[in-house]
Amino acid sequence: MTSDSPPPRRTYSYLGPAGTFTEAALAQVPEARDQQWRSVRNVGEALDDVLEGRSDAAMIAIENSVDGGVSVAQDALATIPGLRIVGEYLVSVDFVLVARPGTRLEDVSLIAAHPVAYAQCLRWLTGALPGHAHIPAASNVASAVGLLDGSSDADAAIAPPGILDHYELEPLARSIGDNPDAVTRFVLVSRTVTPPPPTGADKTSLIVELPEDHPGALLELLEQFATRGINLSLLASRPIGDALGRYRFVIDADGHVEDERMADALLGLRRFSPRVVFLGSYPRADRAVIRYPERYSDDVFVEARDWLRGLLSGEPEA
Amino acid sequence: MTSDSPPPRRTYSYLGPAGTFTEAALAQVPEARDQQWRSVRNVGEALDDVLEGRSDAAMIAIENSVDGGVSVAQDALATIPGLRIVGEYLVSVDFVLVARPGTRLEDVSLIAAHPVAYAQCLRWLTGALPGHAHIPAASNVASAVGLLDGSSDADAAIAPPGILDHYELEPLARSIGDNPDAVTRFVLVSRTVTPPPPTGADKTSLIVELPEDHPGALLELLEQFATRGINLSLLASRPIGDALGRYRFVIDADGHVEDERMADALLGLRRFSPRVVFLGSYPRADRAVIRYPERYSDDVFVEARDWLRGLLSGEPEA
Amino acid sequence: MTSDSPPPRRTYSYLGPAGTFTEAALAQVPEARDQQWRSVRNVGEALDDVLEGRSDAAMIAIENSVDGGVSVAQDALATIPGLRIVGEYLVSVDFVLVARPGTRLEDVSLIAAHPVAYAQCLRWLTGALPGHAHIPAASNVASAVGLLDGSSDADAAIAPPGILDHYELEPLARSIGDNPDAVTRFVLVSRTVTPPPPTGADKTSLIVELPEDHPGALLELLEQFATRGINLSLLASRPIGDALGRYRFVIDADGHVEDERMADALLGLRRFSPRVVFLGSYPRADRAVIRYPERYSDDVFVEARDWLRGLLSGEPEA
Amino acid sequence: MTSDSPPPRRTYSYLGPAGTFTEAALAQVPEARDQQWRSVRNVGEALDDVLEGRSDAAMIAIENSVDGGVSVAQDALATIPGLRIVGEYLVSVDFVLVARPGTRLEDVSLIAAHPVAYAQCLRWLTGALPGHAHIPAASNVASAVGLLDGSSDADAAIAPPGILDHYELEPLARSIGDNPDAVTRFVLVSRTVTPPPPTGADKTSLIVELPEDHPGALLELLEQFATRGINLSLLASRPIGDALGRYRFVIDADGHVEDERMADALLGLRRFSPRVVFLGSYPRADRAVIRYPERYSDDVFVEARDWLRGLLSGEPEA
Repeated sequence: MTSDSPPPRRTYSYLGPAGTFTEAALAQVPEARDQQWRSVRNVGEALDDVLEGRSDAAMIAIENSVDGGVSVAQDALATIPGLRIVGEYLVSVDFVLVARPGTRLEDVSLIAAHPVAYAQCLRWLTGALPGHAHIPAASNVASAVGLLDGSSDADAAIAPPGILDHYELEPLARSIGDNPDAVTRFVLVSRTVTPPPPTGADKTSLIVELPEDHPGALLELLEQFATRGINLSLLASRPIGDALGRYRFVIDADGHVEDERMADALLGLRRFSPRVVFLGSYPRADRAVIRYPERYSDDVFVEARDWLRGLLSGEPEA
Repeated sequence: MTSDSPPPRRTYSYLGPAGTFTEAALAQVPEARDQQWRSVRNVGEALDDVLEGRSDAAMIAIENSVDGGVSVAQDALATIPGLRIVGEYLVSVDFVLVARPGTRLEDVSLIAAHPVAYAQCLRWLTGALPGHAHIPAASNVASAVGLLDGSSDADAAIAPPGILDHYELEPLARSIGDNPDAVTRFVLVSRTVTPPPPTGADKTSLIVELPEDHPGALLELLEQFATRGINLSLLASRPIGDALGRYRFVIDADGHVEDERMADALLGLRRFSPRVVFLGSYPRADRAVIRYPERYSDDVFVEARDWLRGLLSGEPEA
Repeated sequence: MTSDSPPPRRTYSYLGPAGTFTEAALAQVPEARDQQWRSVRNVGEALDDVLEGRSDAAMIAIENSVDGGVSVAQDALATIPGLRIVGEYLVSVDFVLVARPGTRLEDVSLIAAHPVAYAQCLRWLTGALPGHAHIPAASNVASAVGLLDGSSDADAAIAPPGILDHYELEPLARSIGDNPDAVTRFVLVSRTVTPPPPTGADKTSLIVELPEDHPGALLELLEQFATRGINLSLLASRPIGDALGRYRFVIDADGHVEDERMADALLGLRRFSPRVVFLGSYPRADRAVIRYPERYSDDVFVEARDWLRGLLSGEPEA
Repeated sequence: MTSDSPPPRRTYSYLGPAGTFTEAALAQVPEARDQQWRSVRNVGEALDDVLEGRSDAAMIAIENSVDGGVSVAQDALATIPGLRIVGEYLVSVDFVLVARPGTRLEDVSLIAAHPVAYAQCLRWLTGALPGHAHIPAASNVASAVGLLDGSSDADAAIAPPGILDHYELEPLARSIGDNPDAVTRFVLVSRTVTPPPPTGADKTSLIVELPEDHPGALLELLEQFATRGINLSLLASRPIGDALGRYRFVIDADGHVEDERMADALLGLRRFSPRVVFLGSYPRADRAVIRYPERYSDDVFVEARDWLRGLLSGEPEA
């Protein structure tokens, strides 16, 4: 390669098409500007792109403040090896009701919507359109596109506001979500890499299974964090899938694997759990600096190790 | 009422139409035989029927061994007052691929399926029909019915095997679920009533919120059970919905509210939590007798209370 | 008895003779003024007086801030049934070096002292009288009395300052204790009675044995208090005496048995421990009001019980 | 040094004179045979000998199965730097009542005895000699020696049976201790040295202070051991001495500082406590092999560290 040749472009996979919340999340990534964006149809395709080298990273939705964890994404990260989360992004969830031009709100009886979007607008819909019926759609954008291409019988669709930038649709109502503070959390996933360096405002994501036949095992899992002054911002249970009552836990913990207290907690988890998946340490979307009691600072860990070394050497304590 | 008049029939709401897994769950309820069964379109309608007196009870799916908790049902029970779970039922999850008579498997490219059913058959579909596309359906039965009434463009549908008893459909493949042990747990919900008496094989369902700004609060919640020898068969987090990171917990605990140890745990929870919803104590579907250390038996609780009363009376200990 | 007859006098046993720290503790008891004080030679005699009705109460030393628990008193309370602590008193520990009149400090080589008193003055003695030798004495007063009645060969004795009020002895040095803040804690013990009413500044004394073969049993004991917001001001281990490594625990807990949280903790202890001895709830010597988190107040306990009663009655929650 | 010169003899200090239980403990030390034994009058002198180089090691009593911890020894180890326990020895506690030749049991009214020995024979004495009085003695041997050298007015003395090998005394009664299983635990103390290598049957002795104003601090201390599968054979509280209610804890934990789980526990203690004194890891007197759950074995700790190193390197997990 000569000095004239441009740097190779990087590729990012995301749940498309243009106009989705996932695209809005990807737009927040500085490194992704002017790079190749690859629209895919579901989380599985996005992660496959990464694993098979078609993409450098994939943006996927992982949790919604109203609807909870995105099961399919959590389960994929729990079971597919070779992936690592390298960043976190938040997108406010806002919905519009759109229709073919000329449609009036009072004409709407059949509404296309992704089930999650539908659930998040149900109160508004029940009030404004009490007699409506719902047609499930595969994505928030597909619900709207079908209105135009004739593939949908619906009169209107629920979609993100960005849809209006891309399609000739008429907004019948704006901000119809029942919770104005609703937000979706996205993560950017790459192949396994060295974690980005600590920033002081980091998060560590893990999947942990519990030892079997061990009453109080979840208590013990949580103590691994509590006894090191580590707060959890997410603890979600997901079925392992082999039997009712068998769960794995999806965990977001405040701090970075290079923090002494987090490294120590991971060691404790690994010794205790039959399976710990480290999904990554990365800067928090909100950039909130992690606070923790002074007794869990790196210095204290280093000092204790020095002290122990001294004991073993047989030298009198200072 | 004279002795001639028949007893009034009771009404049970369930997610219909005929042929759903929910109907199969309702068929397990002896008291529901020969009573009125009311088919509804979603969990909200089923619970409304109960609250407004149209039904005596509603059968709803609450958890699936592969897909996890049914969010909408868990959230409804967490937020709607006046309901109580009175029974639990398990239904094995088995799927068939059905089509209009004359269709051959190799002709199938577009498949209608409820998203959860689709997810549970994905491995089989990827192998047998690698080029297929998915059309989401509102229910496991609706997916199939649409094939016959012309409302669906799909070539085939994923449905419960019971569908074949009700509709003129052709099975293209049977038992296509990826996990042969998959099972869905249903609960029968009535208006608030006195819990059914303990059987020794009971379960108590609760929704618990954590006090805010209280690190280690989940640990403390779990200790309320652990310190009374109570095992949890379900612990699921659900977003409260007002902000990311705020959860309520859906809990199934082994035992009955009339067991001393469970009553004591509920008192502890109530003192600790800003909100505890008691959803009911009821016989377990599997009828497995609850085992617990002798030190948590009712006798031990009663004896301790007698001892304390003696201390306060000033009489010397025996 | 006619109305003219004086009320019967009450009798208090204490470790005598006059001039001991125990007498100073008894002097702090308002009810003991102008009553009969009975000097005894050891804790065993004092408690026997109470048990056999010769005394109404006995004052005994239970803990010293420098030397720790008074083993013989702790063991007696742990093993003798039928006793209860009804009050607590603190006495500052101060010592004088006394001798027969005419003795000079530089003449002293042989010093009589109770071993505990000797230990508490050792630093001073080593500095002022480096060549001295020690003769153990049975009590702090006996050490001094022996100087006068010819039964002791010692040149000087360590005694409480009160000794100078009772005997013709010459003080060679005052305040010779190594720790000017040293204090001894005494308890007033009666036969089993109803506890005195709560004052808000109370203490509850207990003896608790641990279940055998139960790793983490001490942890569990402590959790009975911690999970009810109860602070411990004393936790001492004493051998049960049958084998090395078998201990009972002497506990002083902040609060009164009539406080809901303490009653609940005692129930928990009783269910857990093979043997709990309740020694009494009584006002603290320092009258310090007990502080505890609001969530452990009596109201919260009462409200939780009302809530549970409501659940069982089948009435909808408010 | 030529090959002719004998190796230098080592010196061992012990509470003498000949015939004490401490001498019996020292006789159990193979390395001490044919070496110099130095009789001292108290624990302070014995430890001074070690610190100042007059002795290589000191044998001191640390705990008695009936009377509990030896406070003065525990406090000395807690406060004097530069010492380390290198061995543990058990001596059965057995007492004889001795007198000047010609004395009959029925003539005895005044009995000389070390207070601890007196306490351990009290039941026998109360039965056999109900009218006796007690003269405290400074040591178990001094009590007897005084009978012969005229320094004691006593008629008889309580002493270890070994006294009969050294002095012309007449045994009036044998095995008069109230508890036939009574045993005293001794430790051999040297200057700070590298701990002796692990044997699989080791004990680690510690002194730990608790952070102030930290409710539940003792709970946290105990959890440092419990969460690493480490059992405690001794937990004793001793006043720090500056105020009532301030304690340090004397701890014997099963295992060796070179065991991974113990090293990890020590790190945890050091980070948590304002002061941890490591008194040594040494073979247990009873040679009982330490058992612990497999999950706390050295392998598990090593494997977890390797795993963590792998995470940080960015290599995919195997």
